[in-house]
Amino acid sequence: MHVALLGGTGDIGEGLALRLARDTDHAVTVGSRDAEKAGDAAGEYETILADHGVKATVEGAENAAAAAAADVAVCCVPAYHLTDTIEAVADDLGDAVLVSPAVGMKSDESGMHYNPPGVGSVTELAAAAAPDGTPVAGAFHNLAAGRLGTLSADLDWDVPIVASDDTAREAVVTLVEDMSGLRPLVAGDLSNAAEIEGLTPLLINLARNNDGMHDLGVKFW
Amino acid sequence: MHVALLGGTGDIGEGLALRLARDTDHAVTVGSRDAEKAGDAAGEYETILADHGVKATVEGAENAAAAAAADVAVCCVPAYHLTDTIEAVADDLGDAVLVSPAVGMKSDESGMHYNPPGVGSVTELAAAAAPDGTPVAGAFHNLAAGRLGTLSADLDWDVPIVASDDTAREAVVTLVEDMSGLRPLVAGDLSNAAEIEGLTPLLINLARNNDGMHDLGVKFW
Repeated sequence: MHVALLGGTGDIGEGLALRLARDTDHAVTVGSRDAEKAGDAAGEYETILADHGVKATVEGAENAAAAAAADVAVCCVPAYHLTDTIEAVADDLGDAVLVSPAVGMKSDESGMHYNPPGVGSVTELAAAAAPDGTPVAGAFHNLAAGRLGTLSADLDWDVPIVASDDTAREAVVTLVEDMSGLRPLVAGDLSNAAEIEGLTPLLINLARNNDGMHDLGVKFW
Repeated sequence: MHVALLGGTGDIGEGLALRLARDTDHAVTVGSRDAEKAGDAAGEYETILADHGVKATVEGAENAAAAAAADVAVCCVPAYHLTDTIEAVADDLGDAVLVSPAVGMKSDESGMHYNPPGVGSVTELAAAAAPDGTPVAGAFHNLAAGRLGTLSADLDWDVPIVASDDTAREAVVTLVEDMSGLRPLVAGDLSNAAEIEGLTPLLINLARNNDGMHDLGVKFW
């Protein structure tokens, strides 16, 4: 498949780009509002991969061009940029599966708290912003970007996946299966996204409150 | 410590009673609104323990009497009985730590969904129902009762703990540490409970949607 990482110049985009390029045969394009910035990031990712002995091509493109070429478009921007980013590529998505990893959180003196939008979850906000009929999935919410982007780090994490239909679910299950150390788990339809997103502030709170824990992920058994 | 399992005749109460009695030196009293029912359950638990080669004493008592003797009182009733149960023992809690494992959920055709009370979480609802100054903790929300109550099953699960103060936190950390296969993890104060409680419907949805998964718990790393 061809995977576009919309807004893929940030830390979650970097981690997914590096691991998709290293572990899979899927084509990877880093998207940005700024094509030059996208190209620069793609070049940096290729350099990091080369430093780890991996000869791989990562393309860079403006978000709409990246979306136009994609079978799967992962929207790697923070929750507050999600709607704008999706609306800017809406005419270019075609039949692509749209994937949302973003989580809404707020912080106070007690730690991080889940802060979903009115529609119930950020994943459902992505679906609301997408053109009618777009296959939408929620995934990658709980991946600690620091460890994800460290290619020398083994993961062994689970990735709960919610999806609007079989097309979206099967595409994301395949992507996750193809990355080393990640196990896809089906968690239902998009209305089940909030419980997955809410796990992310818990992971942050656990890392803050327990010695020796950082960059946490999760394993269900 | 002396542990009271208020409403401890149900499945989570049974699992905690069996494992506390088998794995620890803490005294265990099963509470119920009906002292005779509590005594019957305690006797059944002793029989199960004996069948596993464990000679242990489990007491049974009416909830208020169980609370009066307790250093830690775990309120093992469903969320919709929580307030009534706590109010019924309020005069007897003394300095005991009150622990809430309950989760509010609703079910529809998509699966289970977290359904917190207006105060934010069931754990905070327990704190609101308790007398002022009661040390309150949230813990045991994510334990699958079926596996917990099966003494032949190994657990290797994490138990995120939120607490109103150090007294509550330290008491529950000790209890969890003393049970085989459970690791206590500090998750912050009571305002951080919702993200832990929300994990329970996710565990149920994952078990429903993935072949071979059932009675799930969680491990953070």
